Amino acid sequence: MNTAQTLDRIRIVLSCTSHPGNIGAAARAMKTMGLRRLVLVSPLHFPDPVAEARASGAGDVLARAQVVGSMREALAGTVFAAAMTARRRELALPPKSARDAAGVVMSYAQSGEVALVFGNETSGLSNEDVALCQMPVMIPTNPEYSSLNLGAAVQILCYELRMHCESELAIEPPEAVPASFEEVERFHEHLESVMANSGFFDPANPKRLLQRVRRLFGRIRLEKEEVGILRGFLAAVDRKPD
Amino acid sequence: MNTAQTLDRIRIVLSCTSHPGNIGAAARAMKTMGLRRLVLVSPLHFPDPVAEARASGAGDVLARAQVVGSMREALAGTVFAAAMTARRRELALPPKSARDAAGVVMSYAQSGEVALVFGNETSGLSNEDVALCQMPVMIPTNPEYSSLNLGAAVQILCYELRMHCESELAIEPPEAVPASFEEVERFHEHLESVMANSGFFDPANPKRLLQRVRRLFGRIRLEKEEVGILRGFLAAVDRKPD
Repeated sequence: MNTAQTLDRIRIVLSCTSHPGNIGAAARAMKTMGLRRLVLVSPLHFPDPVAEARASGAGDVLARAQVVGSMREALAGTVFAAAMTARRRELALPPKSARDAAGVVMSYAQSGEVALVFGNETSGLSNEDVALCQMPVMIPTNPEYSSLNLGAAVQILCYELRMHCESELAIEPPEAVPASFEEVERFHEHLESVMANSGFFDPANPKRLLQRVRRLFGRIRLEKEEVGILRGFLAAVDRKPD
Repeated sequence: MNTAQTLDRIRIVLSCTSHPGNIGAAARAMKTMGLRRLVLVSPLHFPDPVAEARASGAGDVLARAQVVGSMREALAGTVFAAAMTARRRELALPPKSARDAAGVVMSYAQSGEVALVFGNETSGLSNEDVALCQMPVMIPTNPEYSSLNLGAAVQILCYELRMHCESELAIEPPEAVPASFEEVERFHEHLESVMANSGFFDPANPKRLLQRVRRLFGRIRLEKEEVGILRGFLAAVDRKPD
């Protein structure tokens, strides 16, 4: 696959963006680096003339942007998602640097659709949204002032993706076929129901346990065949409550 | 020298900026990466509330920004300057990538003051301004749309500087003491006058020849001692017209 084809498999997902100027800046940042696929989860103002103005010559990226109502919709069809985060989170994996993350993202883009997810300007991503992704990403910053503008963060990540394409490093596809977002989600639903049926946890208050379980399987980056094995096992052990 | 001390030797110079929002965005981009010294050459609007708003928590960088009337003033005291350029220029050196340039800039910052120079949003830098710098720099972009926002370009360069600091690569100072901007400028004035006195060129139309001479000595990156040798030689050969 050439650079353009690989970059076309990467969607930039902006969640709950407050300022339409940042959506425009993100579109311009993407296009300068050769990315075209923008997905907006519940933007506060979109479409908006301020977004158009800041997009400059990247109006086509805005025009083709897909607006969805949930992170699950935004990640549909992906085999890998990376979540930008400005801080370490208690239950999340340790974040990768933008540069290292770019290599991982490009590698998965050899196998299928990939997402890079950015949160709201003030509050970032929710822990639930981060848990839907397989890898947290941080941009190294000044510890005394780490408040990157959203468009600037998109610019750096897209730049690192392009640099990775242009470097002489061969991009190796992952060794096995990665499971899709939907396959992993169905596995988590299955697991959750089996855990509930078994009496292992209280479905009225499952939040922390489920986050830990997602963290565990997120770290593995499940392959398609592995999901099949795990779900076969779950089906075998499942005992519906009487 | 630690990271903060090295980054404090690097000034970001914005020449003839049209939109105050970009000045604010540049200040924020700088501060997130640990840079603090902003120099503005003839900005169209500054100070300006739009710049303040876009600077967000980097208002201190704006408040300390130095406003000057010429590129020569902006480069005073530097031992090295790199010029952002979006295109190859006929008489300039081949540009370095932002990543490679960051290494060179950090190396010179071990010896003294260094500048990173960015031009106007629409027209970029003049050839004359580029000729005052020792190294052109380009950010790799999508060949079909390379129009990086000014603040985004500042963000990428400052990010590369910080990444260079944080990498495990040792930053080696240049082997000898580099000549200062003023020393190199006095050498060029001296050379020009000797070339005119000798009848070597027509002072009424010197432009292209002087550009070629600047390109040549820019590539050499003169050391302090070398400027002394060259100026001694110029003094020795100089024959004032009768």
